[in-house]
Amino acid sequence: MKYNLKKLAELVDGQLQGTNIEIDGVGGADNAAKTEISFAQNQEYLDLALANAGAVLITEDLAADEIETPVIIVENPRLAFSKIAHKFTTQPYQSFNIADEAVISDTAQLGSEVSIHPGVVIADGAQIGDEVILAPGVYVGQDVSIGEGTILYPNVTVERGSQIGSDVEINSGAVIGSEGFGFEEEEEGYVKVPQFGNVVIEDDVEIGANVTIDRGATGSTTIGRSTKIDNLVHIAHNVEIGPECLIIAQVGIAGSAKVERKVTLAGKSGVVGHITIGENTTVAANSTVTHDLEAESFVSGYPAHDHRQERRTKAARKKLPEMLKRIRKLEKRIEELEE
Amino acid sequence: MKYNLKKLAELVDGQLQGTNIEIDGVGGADNAAKTEISFAQNQEYLDLALANAGAVLITEDLAADEIETPVIIVENPRLAFSKIAHKFTTQPYQSFNIADEAVISDTAQLGSEVSIHPGVVIADGAQIGDEVILAPGVYVGQDVSIGEGTILYPNVTVERGSQIGSDVEINSGAVIGSEGFGFEEEEEGYVKVPQFGNVVIEDDVEIGANVTIDRGATGSTTIGRSTKIDNLVHIAHNVEIGPECLIIAQVGIAGSAKVERKVTLAGKSGVVGHITIGENTTVAANSTVTHDLEAESFVSGYPAHDHRQERRTKAARKKLPEMLKRIRKLEKRIEELEE
Amino acid sequence: MKYNLKKLAELVDGQLQGTNIEIDGVGGADNAAKTEISFAQNQEYLDLALANAGAVLITEDLAADEIETPVIIVENPRLAFSKIAHKFTTQPYQSFNIADEAVISDTAQLGSEVSIHPGVVIADGAQIGDEVILAPGVYVGQDVSIGEGTILYPNVTVERGSQIGSDVEINSGAVIGSEGFGFEEEEEGYVKVPQFGNVVIEDDVEIGANVTIDRGATGSTTIGRSTKIDNLVHIAHNVEIGPECLIIAQVGIAGSAKVERKVTLAGKSGVVGHITIGENTTVAANSTVTHDLEAESFVSGYPAHDHRQERRTKAARKKLPEMLKRIRKLEKRIEELEE
Repeated sequence: MKYNLKKLAELVDGQLQGTNIEIDGVGGADNAAKTEISFAQNQEYLDLALANAGAVLITEDLAADEIETPVIIVENPRLAFSKIAHKFTTQPYQSFNIADEAVISDTAQLGSEVSIHPGVVIADGAQIGDEVILAPGVYVGQDVSIGEGTILYPNVTVERGSQIGSDVEINSGAVIGSEGFGFEEEEEGYVKVPQFGNVVIEDDVEIGANVTIDRGATGSTTIGRSTKIDNLVHIAHNVEIGPECLIIAQVGIAGSAKVERKVTLAGKSGVVGHITIGENTTVAANSTVTHDLEAESFVSGYPAHDHRQERRTKAARKKLPEMLKRIRKLEKRIEELEE
Repeated sequence: MKYNLKKLAELVDGQLQGTNIEIDGVGGADNAAKTEISFAQNQEYLDLALANAGAVLITEDLAADEIETPVIIVENPRLAFSKIAHKFTTQPYQSFNIADEAVISDTAQLGSEVSIHPGVVIADGAQIGDEVILAPGVYVGQDVSIGEGTILYPNVTVERGSQIGSDVEINSGAVIGSEGFGFEEEEEGYVKVPQFGNVVIEDDVEIGANVTIDRGATGSTTIGRSTKIDNLVHIAHNVEIGPECLIIAQVGIAGSAKVERKVTLAGKSGVVGHITIGENTTVAANSTVTHDLEAESFVSGYPAHDHRQERRTKAARKKLPEMLKRIRKLEKRIEELEE
Repeated sequence: MKYNLKKLAELVDGQLQGTNIEIDGVGGADNAAKTEISFAQNQEYLDLALANAGAVLITEDLAADEIETPVIIVENPRLAFSKIAHKFTTQPYQSFNIADEAVISDTAQLGSEVSIHPGVVIADGAQIGDEVILAPGVYVGQDVSIGEGTILYPNVTVERGSQIGSDVEINSGAVIGSEGFGFEEEEEGYVKVPQFGNVVIEDDVEIGANVTIDRGATGSTTIGRSTKIDNLVHIAHNVEIGPECLIIAQVGIAGSAKVERKVTLAGKSGVVGHITIGENTTVAANSTVTHDLEAESFVSGYPAHDHRQERRTKAARKKLPEMLKRIRKLEKRIEELEE
């Protein structure tokens, strides 16, 4: 595949400066070939890229008349680079082939141009959209539906009734639709509360490796459009996550919590059950959210509260041993004065 | 399957009020059919359930003469509902079939009415009890024993020598019997301490998705009867967990720690190695237990200590920047007085 | 297999005291047989071992003339025991056989004496070294290389381009080379930053169950020689971990962080992106490292700082409610004085 730079500039809303050469791939500033395009966000990377690449995506302030290599001027070079990269790269595991060593139910429906690898098992009533890719060892449960262009990496498990949108990526070992954690106490032990619900994942979601998303008890656990979930995240039953959220690695979200649009939960943070986090909120790393948060919040700590206040508290906290000493001294001095 | 309400009332130790109709299933207050039974714990849910369901499980204080729909009065409606639900639902993956695409050692012993799905591998000497269900991609190691009625969801790994009781549920991707983390330092690198032991899981345990339980170094790592473990929990070698514990998501328990009966470890909490947590103790979310805890403790923080004290400390902590100011003022005032 | 004690003493640089009997295995102090060797680090375990084992590895201070059982005196009995144990035990899953139920690409290269179990899938261009063991359900991606003597436990996933050294152990469910978490914001949603890089794991590394290691964006995510990683650890793209580190369970390391030689990260600790942790540093459990750390640091807390200082702060923190009271009293007393 080849594209000329004019075409690529159009794709990324950029302005070409220099010769309209043909490009056959993308590469890092340090390793791009002369027929490839790279990108630079600062002078250091630009120098590197100019030494290697055939063309470079840059910001306006990096543009200079001395540059002989063709450049495309854009607002966000990394974004532009990412878009162009997707033009040149094919999805991994895209074989357009159904392996003999896959086990597919007669009642499952397969779209066109699917790629199904050895060791895949597809249960009754599953619906697999066009151009779906199922890597080795993937399990697709009963009545699961998967939208077009979605890729499931090796050893992903999708339990019965899950609904997965289009252009979703689910990394290896993730479990979609595991049993929710609900028990009622008895005299000796517990009775499991039946988990009748399912998981609904909207379009363009990415889910990290070894993530676990429990099915709803009744109703659904839902992940909104374009939300991105990093590795080893836990999402409990009946959680609702809005669109365009960023959920970083090792976050845990307890049952029936609601996370609105464009929330960022930084690594290892936790959210207790049955609360709502308003849209555009950011929760700092390793924080624990224990109550509702308004939209546009920026919180940290445990319990998570206003981040600037938490920073002041943390700064003061360091002075604690010193404060203790100062209080002791004050007590002595006042005693002397009182006498 | 159908049961009349009198029969169901007996099952849950409840009192039927209204016509003894036949019921063929269970449903949520919002979606139960007229031939199904639902439950309600408050008036809002009762109204919903009465509009949909054929019968409702309720507490005594919700009972009223005006209710025309048959109701069963019980102490704990959700518990009663859960018990009845299990009467109507069949286990997922219960096929009563051994798939051609499973690989089963000649020396493995299979009980009656087992369900073994494609991609299952069973190693030498394994003993699989009656009505055991092994979902696609499950691996059962050498000399593993699995008690009757136990279900292993897709892609579960059970390593050599593990002993799993009856009516156990293990969710997808869980690893039972991985190598313990034990190394001795050498001049250059480490020598692994051999991990000879195994994992013993008693009856009625539930284990969440992508949980990891390491085998004992020598002896066993043990999980007691009816203990419930949520997703992504880590249990190190030679940990002993008593019966009826609740271990919530992303908890980590270090080597040789002992957790006694009916302990609750809330989400993301951690337990260091070689300590004992007394029975009926509750550890709050994201706490770190660093020393032995007496029975009936309720702790939080890091290091985890009395929860009420920790709450007071947390409340005072918020005033730290203010305290610092007040100390400064006091110092000034006393200086003036001293002059 | 049998070795006499003289031979074993040589192996571990120890001094034999007593008869040079033959030994056919190893065992714990409580369960070793009369033909096996055990070890003891204190008198209690020595008494136990003497009652059971045929020979015991002990430290010099435990040696005594009354002991009739042959002993080998060494500096570190557990280290010596571990070395001897490896002489007697064979690797699990070492079948020296290639299962019919494995799916192996024609373009993959297999070394000699490999053990490849049912359900294994090996993609195009993979290179499998001598004596490599691939347990059931393992996936080896395109152009992956695996050095000799390495063992991959069940259901491990190794994504395309990963390079794994010799004598590496990777526990069940671990994912090597998952997609890095990199996105650029657009008006509606995100564009994924392509993740072109790979994972490089050096010799003698051990990786725990359900660990996730992301591939580099460009370049590699690297794990140094002899580093040991416990269960459920997350390592993001382009992280560089030096040799001989100990990374305990549930640690998370964000993108492009650098962890130098012989660093210990205790359980649940976290490291933010793009920082460097100097060699020989120890990070206490559940701490969050937010900035560069010099070599030989010992830190705890969030943000992680000097551990002794953090201990003092934690001790003072407990006195916070009391400090608040003392400040109030001081204010009253000074008011009275001022009047």
